This record gives sequence, C-alpha cells and structure tokens, in this order.
Amino acid sequence: MSSIDLPLTRDSIAAAHALIKPHIHSTPVLTNTTLTNLASTPQSPEALKGTPWEGQEPAKPRIRLFFKAENFQKIGAFKVRGAFHAVLRLVEERGIEEVRREGVVTHSSGNHAQALALAARTFSIPAHIVMPSISTPSKIEGTRAQGAILHFSGSTAAEREAAVADVIKDTGATLIPPYDHPHIMLGQGTMGKEIDEEVAALLKDRPELSIHQASAGKAKDGLDALIAPCGGGGMLSGNAIYFHDSTTRVFGAEPSFEGADDARRGVAAGERITSVKTLTIADGLRTPLGPHTWKIISDKNYVAGLYAVTEQNIKDALQLVLERMKCFVEPSAVVGLATVLYNEDFRKLVEKEAGEEGWNVGLVFSGGNTTVEAIVKMFGNVGEKEAEREEGVVGANGEKIAENVAG
Amino acid sequence: MSSIDLPLTRDSIAAAHALIKPHIHSTPVLTNTTLTNLASTPQSPEALKGTPWEGQEPAKPRIRLFFKAENFQKIGAFKVRGAFHAVLRLVEERGIEEVRREGVVTHSSGNHAQALALAARTFSIPAHIVMPSISTPSKIEGTRAQGAILHFSGSTAAEREAAVADVIKDTGATLIPPYDHPHIMLGQGTMGKEIDEEVAALLKDRPELSIHQASAGKAKDGLDALIAPCGGGGMLSGNAIYFHDSTTRVFGAEPSFEGADDARRGVAAGERITSVKTLTIADGLRTPLGPHTWKIISDKNYVAGLYAVTEQNIKDALQLVLERMKCFVEPSAVVGLATVLYNEDFRKLVEKEAGEEGWNVGLVFSGGNTTVEAIVKMFGNVGEKEAEREEGVVGANGEKIAENVAG
Repeated sequence: MSSIDLPLTRDSIAAAHALIKPHIHSTPVLTNTTLTNLASTPQSPEALKGTPWEGQEPAKPRIRLFFKAENFQKIGAFKVRGAFHAVLRLVEERGIEEVRREGVVTHSSGNHAQALALAARTFSIPAHIVMPSISTPSKIEGTRAQGAILHFSGSTAAEREAAVADVIKDTGATLIPPYDHPHIMLGQGTMGKEIDEEVAALLKDRPELSIHQASAGKAKDGLDALIAPCGGGGMLSGNAIYFHDSTTRVFGAEPSFEGADDARRGVAAGERITSVKTLTIADGLRTPLGPHTWKIISDKNYVAGLYAVTEQNIKDALQLVLERMKCFVEPSAVVGLATVLYNEDFRKLVEKEAGEEGWNVGLVFSGGNTTVEAIVKMFGNVGEKEAEREEGVVGANGEKIAENVAG
Repeated sequence: MSSIDLPLTRDSIAAAHALIKPHIHSTPVLTNTTLTNLASTPQSPEALKGTPWEGQEPAKPRIRLFFKAENFQKIGAFKVRGAFHAVLRLVEERGIEEVRREGVVTHSSGNHAQALALAARTFSIPAHIVMPSISTPSKIEGTRAQGAILHFSGSTAAEREAAVADVIKDTGATLIPPYDHPHIMLGQGTMGKEIDEEVAALLKDRPELSIHQASAGKAKDGLDALIAPCGGGGMLSGNAIYFHDSTTRVFGAEPSFEGADDARRGVAAGERITSVKTLTIADGLRTPLGPHTWKIISDKNYVAGLYAVTEQNIKDALQLVLERMKCFVEPSAVVGLATVLYNEDFRKLVEKEAGEEGWNVGLVFSGGNTTVEAIVKMFGNVGEKEAEREEGVVGANGEKIAENVAG
C-alpha cells in the first residue's frame, strides 16, 4: 500500500475528506426526543440486578443524543470512507495506470469488501476479494454484484492469507487492509469532521437541543463526547485523531460477549490483545485491534475511556432504534447507545463530570447491513412470546380497532 | 366537529399547511438507486407464475422512485397532519376556552389516537380515547403516555360507539374521526404539498435523478405519479385533492387479502363497500372508505386508478425497504412500492404511458409504527430456514470472515 506518510492529524483528515467527498454521502445527524429522555432517566434498581452495579444508587446523568446515521452511507456502512481514501492515495502514489493494471485485494466478505469493490469499480480498478468458500450465497452474490473478482479460501486466517498472497503474486495487486492502516484510519476519521460540523450547524439553528429540559443552562455549541463502536479500531482511532486536543472527548464501546472487549481489556492490562474468538451478535466488532489502531486507542490523550456492553444490552438498544427511531441498523451500530443507556460506569462519569448542564453525546450508527432473517433469529423467542398479543383486532364494521402504538 | 366549510381544493390544503406547519416535521424525500433500478427491471416470467399475469410478457416500465418518509413524522405516522388540522379548526370555530373545557374524543388504539392525543396535549385540550379493553398493554400504555384519558369498551363497533356517545354525553367532547372528515382529508393532503415542493427542489439540484440511465431524455422537474396507501382513504383523498388538475396523477394501493381492497372493488362496482373484515398484515389499511373519502376516491378526475397487492408482495417490499433503504416502516407503508414492483397492471400502464422517458413516481411511507415482535412473527418461517446460514464465522485469529453484505 501507499508509502505516502500522512501525519495522523486533524489536517490530514480534512485533506482526506476533500479527496473522498465527491464519492460518499454526507450522512445526516439525527436527534430523537424519546431516546434522549431515556438516556437522561436513571435506570431502576431492578434493572441493575445481576449487573456489576447491583445494589448501587443508579446514576442520574443528563444526556442529549446526536446520531450520525452512517447506515444511510453508500453500501450501508462507514467503510466506504476508508476504502475510497486508501484507493485514492494509492492512485496518487502509483498512478492510475499502474493501479488499474495491478488492482487491489482484500480478505473480507463483509462491509469492507463491498466498500473496496465500490471504490475500485468507481475508478475502473480490479478488486480482488478473498472470501471463505463457506460464505453464504447471498454474501457471495452481493460482493460479485459490486463487480469484484472473487477468490475462495478456507476459513482459517492462514488459509485466507495464503490466498491473498497468491493473488498478489499473480497480479501485483496491493493489499488494502480493513482497518489497520493510517489511510483507512484517516478516511474513517472524516466522519468525525462531519458530525462535528453538522452538530455545530444544528445547534446554531436549534440551540434548545443542547439545553436540558429542567435546567436553565447555557446552550452548548457542540459535542462534549463522542462514543464510537470499536472492532478493529479504524473508526474509533480516526474519530480520536480528529477530536484530539478538542473539547470533545472520544470514547470507545465494545461488546463484552466471549471477550470481544479486547480493546478495553488490552488497555487495562497495558498490552494489546492480538486474538479474539467471539460470536457476539455485534458481528462487525469481532476483530481485535491492530498495531496502528492500538497505538491511538491505548493513548489516553486520544481515547478517554472504553466501555463494554452485554448481548442483552445490544438487543435492547437495537429494538429501541428500530421501533423508536425507525432506523434499520446492524447490532454493531448500537453499542454506543447501549453504553449510554445501560453502562453505569459511563453514566456515573457523565453525572460527575457534566453535572446539571449535562453532556451532548454523539453516537455513530456505523452501518445498517443486517437482514430480516438475522433480526428474526435474534428476537425469535420474544416473537413467540408476543405473537399472540400482536394479532390485530377488527371491529364488526371492519374498522381496525387495535393497531400499533407510536414511539 | 367544526362546521367551517372549507372547499376541497389545493388552496385549502395550503391554508391547512400554514396552520399545522409549526407542529409537524417536514419529513424528507428519499431516493434509492437499488429500488429505482429494481422497479425499472422487468419481472421474470417465473415471478409471474400463479399470478393473474402468468404467461404474459413482463412489462418493461422505466420508473424512478421518490419516497416521502412519514415514518419519521411525529408519533411515527402521517396521522398528526389531519389531527392537528382538525383540532386547530375546531379551536378556530369554538374558541380555545370552550374546546379546553369540553375536550375531543375518538375511538382508535392506533396512530390516529396517538396523533389526536399529541395534538390535544399541545394545546392543553383533554383527549378522550376509547379503546377496546382487550388492547395490548403496550398500546394502552403508549396512548396513556401521550397524556390521553382512556376509556375502555368492548371490541364491536356498537360497543365502541356507545362508549364514545357516553363520553360525549358526559363531557361535551367533540368527535374527531380518524379519516372521514374534510378537515382530516385536507390535513393529510399537506403531505402532497410537501412532496411536490421537495421533489421539485431535489430535481433542480440533481436533474440526473429524473433521467433514465439508458435514455438521453430531458430531465423532468416533478412527479408524474403518486401512489398512496388506501385504508379509510383520508390520505389518498387528501393527496388527490392537492394534485387535482395537475400533471401528477394520483393512484391508490391496497392489500387484496380477505377483501381489504374495498376501494378498488367499490369503484369497479360503482358503489361504496361499507364493511370489510380482514386481517391483512397491512393493519393500517383494514378500514373501508367513508362517504367523504369515497366521493373523492371514486372520481376518476381525482384518483386515476386503484391497485391491489398480495400479502407476499407486501412482505417482499417490506424486506427490501428494511434491508436496502435501512428504513423501519410498517407493512401498510409499502403497498405503494409493492404495486410499483409487482403489480403488472400498473407496470404495463407506466410502460404504455411513459415510454422511453419513464415516470417519476412518488411513494408514501405512511408510518413506522410496527414492532420487532411483529417483524419476527411476519418473517418467522424465513428465519428458521435461514438461521443456519446467518451464523457468522470467525477466523483463527478472531477476524470476522463472514458478515453481512450491503444493499
């Protein structure tokens, strides 16, 4: 990949943004009164039973939420930012002719593969995608539909890396990794620039969004904190670079299931965890940090804290986003919201640091690439329990007399 | 209800809009390349098997889609438009003191009840809502949370009407019906004004959205057609009034299940169907037309055609909207999209009328008030079938190697 040595700074992110802007959507920042009120309501003592905070006084934070809706991004996830940036820097360094001749390659069957395929196709560059041969047919077809050249491998890392090495040997293609590279990190950081500017514009128009209902506080003009989901750490580190030395603190959120909170655990232990094996429903967050992302994320001057949430927290937050915000997002997208709503360590921090004024908290809906089938699987038990009650009732003259209630 | 006699015209809708604008969201108009391309792709002959069009040559319409996202409206549905308009006209006629003393009443446990409760609460007017006592607890609580005064009745129309009559006798409250009243129809028609103006603004900025990929046609500056869901007909008639005598033709869409397509059947027979008993999954569309809405909808100068779609059509369209557009909508919201994608009568009409140039077609996402439980119930079988294949696969070093594919 490109050897252009961009410093990891806000200026580099501004340059990345200028480069990729024609190719990405500037996704909206959304607010939602119901969720903002819920975040500012103390959890019940019952809700804390069975958690590490059982028996403690529930925190009373004041929180106003701002959601960056990257589920409406091209290919349905923020990954296009890094992919376009990495491809454009590669073209800058090597020239379009050479890159078109040799192509790019990655190993993924997910959002990064789609993003790279789209970025490459945009500039008529061949994209080689190594996927495990056991991938579901819909995923194989989805990647093929983006115009990528598919290569199949076994499902272990060694088999996959061997397949990538073969592609590179045969074609000269350049590896564009999914997260652990400065160009990817800077590309994802462009989201931080957008949310910063969009929230500032929104609060200029509607300063009341920044004032807690019950307080006579002064309206703030931006975010006090941003919580980003953390898998490989490309997006979290990019945002942390953007907001470094600003008044906005950046936090990371991870699932705790089967050790998926490798960043949190690694930072606590002072050493990067290099292997994770988890089947958390937040399937975009199953990866450990890489050396580049670790360097930023383990630095307290960049990331102010890392929080973990349970599978149930994620499901509860996901249901709220679907039913109350009417946004279709993937489970990985809601770990930040789950932290705000259910993690008492974070909530106590806000209560302590922000007091009466409260905090404006930005959250990133990282993507929306889940399926109805996955939702059915995730909530299937609830469905059986509730199915009976969901049946509509129709009056004698046919008018519907039982229907859904709004959020 | 108010006796102010507003003519059913575009001017009256403009006046209604000016009145309710401070109280509603101006919802966005969305576009989606995947769905626009799908609408412009002929169905396969296999897809037509078992339909009325089996064995026929599939239509080749050119269609560009524009979605009015009323699922992001206050209370999650367009119903606030009519409710605010009716309440404000009532206040205009009777004076706020009298309306505050006597209140308003309706029978519904659904979107209209929520909408009326919100409109009334906004002006400190008591809202009496008659609900069947068998309503689900979540619906009862949702309505109560809007500050309404609940009254329970049996589930037949007679029992419900008796309960409403009791409320009126006790309090003097004014009945605000869910759809069959000029003020409700004009209120819902404000959506037509918004989509008309929003599409014009969008096409001014991005004329390419109005040109079929393969044609060198001239960009159009607005909608050729609008398809609105039709239950009681308040929204369809409101839109039809707004677009009357314009270049935008208005169509209605209904579910066909268990005779839910009462408007289509009634217009075909030349007589209003007054009773429908259906459990279509499009639960907002289980009601028959009323006398006021029938008058507009049965007039070819207002509504150019009515189309019906199957439960499977609705489920397929719903899945596309969730997975591809990342919007959480209720089944009733997608009958227009289902018509565009699967009803060959409509598709043939577009092919014939619009030719190479194609049509810009507006669709209304009427609401987003469904639940995860309802989705699970609706797609449960698919879930079981696909569950096995949805399991993520993680490589030896923990990197996720099978994830979802973007739309």
